[in-house]
Amino acid sequence: MLIKEIKELRSTIKSWKREGLSVGFVPTMGALHEGHQSLIKRAVEENDKVVVSVFVNPTQFGPNEDFDSYPRDINKDLEICLSAGANVVFNPEPSEMYYGDKSTSVSVSKLTDVLCGAKRPGHFDGVCLVVSKLLNIVTPDKAYFGEKDAQQVAVIKRMVRDLNIDVEIVACPIIREEDGLAKSSRNTYLSAEERKAALVLSRSLEIAKDTLKNGERDARKIKEFILNELNKEPLAKIDYVEIIDSDSLASVDIIERNILIPIAVFIGKTRLIDNFTFEIYTY
Amino acid sequence: MLIKEIKELRSTIKSWKREGLSVGFVPTMGALHEGHQSLIKRAVEENDKVVVSVFVNPTQFGPNEDFDSYPRDINKDLEICLSAGANVVFNPEPSEMYYGDKSTSVSVSKLTDVLCGAKRPGHFDGVCLVVSKLLNIVTPDKAYFGEKDAQQVAVIKRMVRDLNIDVEIVACPIIREEDGLAKSSRNTYLSAEERKAALVLSRSLEIAKDTLKNGERDARKIKEFILNELNKEPLAKIDYVEIIDSDSLASVDIIERNILIPIAVFIGKTRLIDNFTFEIYTY
Repeated sequence: MLIKEIKELRSTIKSWKREGLSVGFVPTMGALHEGHQSLIKRAVEENDKVVVSVFVNPTQFGPNEDFDSYPRDINKDLEICLSAGANVVFNPEPSEMYYGDKSTSVSVSKLTDVLCGAKRPGHFDGVCLVVSKLLNIVTPDKAYFGEKDAQQVAVIKRMVRDLNIDVEIVACPIIREEDGLAKSSRNTYLSAEERKAALVLSRSLEIAKDTLKNGERDARKIKEFILNELNKEPLAKIDYVEIIDSDSLASVDIIERNILIPIAVFIGKTRLIDNFTFEIYTY
Repeated sequence: MLIKEIKELRSTIKSWKREGLSVGFVPTMGALHEGHQSLIKRAVEENDKVVVSVFVNPTQFGPNEDFDSYPRDINKDLEICLSAGANVVFNPEPSEMYYGDKSTSVSVSKLTDVLCGAKRPGHFDGVCLVVSKLLNIVTPDKAYFGEKDAQQVAVIKRMVRDLNIDVEIVACPIIREEDGLAKSSRNTYLSAEERKAALVLSRSLEIAKDTLKNGERDARKIKEFILNELNKEPLAKIDYVEIIDSDSLASVDIIERNILIPIAVFIGKTRLIDNFTFEIYTY
């Protein structure tokens, strides 16, 4: 079922809750791919009812970013959601979500000073605002986010903790193409040549992973391996490569605890991100 | 019943909700007086169950304000709440409410640029943070606030609207002492002489009200009447006197719509506030 109004969504969810049913929620910006599908399927497994929101949120795009060109195809998205088992697709207009004189902001500091937060000023304020609104509208038991946006997961978890929002945030693994490229709605921007060049992201992370498995614990050296690999690709322009603590997102010199290695790379004009978490006690 | 932990409060409220009971909520900083009692009684009339929070919220006090000296007497407060018909008093420690590494903020801009927001930097950020947390913990159907803190009511209403928090904000009339002084927990700071001097707040507002009833519509003139009256009192030091639009809190020159006249005055070291709303179509 497609719902466009907050009021109708709320009343649908309230009727579920009166029956004692649990609600899972997958917030998306649409242009759904197998990554989103994996979130929806997991939500369907773990909850009685599942809501997917499809909303290209204007407040999380910078003035020179791709808000206008971001791919939109609600009919295709609706089909993907329903075939994955979602019960409701919430697809509001921007005017349904934001008043002209909106003046409330939700911000997470510190965690957003680095990575995409540093490179995309205001981005996470937009994410926190829309996610807090959506969580208040849907009031889910569990909400599902992809680990591809690792910083987003950390920021949302912090926001939910600090604001006592009564929801469990479930982070789900990155889904990749067969050749290793992390699935992303923005992959559709890539030309054939760029699509090939984009493999440098996952390849450089694989090298880092192998080096870590072989026992290297000097973050500076690991970073050098990644940078070297990325620099071999002429179409790639590095935005950031970091080695950070998984929880605090603080920079790490010697790797002694679980770390996150997130990278952001422009392939032509398209900015792609990828990452992996290295759990120190696993190996 | 006194509850100190979020977990216990949530589970109590969830058991009420499972029975289909409605929940009213009165957030306070304790030091309860007849003003708070009137909120609790109204909540008891309008809801099946009522929660009162008693929490002197550190994040809404400035560094040179009265956080340490703010009156605290949980036993007396508990008695007042229960005798007014409340079911639960939530009295958390600051460490139950705030993590050491808290980094999420909730802000309302514009509405907080004036009045107490301008005079007490950060105050409303603290209010928005604690109220959004408490609303997420209690998930009430209705929450009750006193009109004495008129700007607070406007800010909370805006926050609730902008963040889609599913609660009705109920604003309740100012309760006064017999001689006209608005009830306030901070009245206990006043010496006998100051207590007498404090009457200048309500007296100056009464003069403004009479002038408005007599047809004066020039905000500058009304303001002058108030300032003249306040200036007659040697113990009074004016913090602000404003004539503003009830909704936008924007300054008004010619009074053509509903207005709010809020004042803040130091009596000795104690900062007191008072206000009234003039409804243009009432007279």
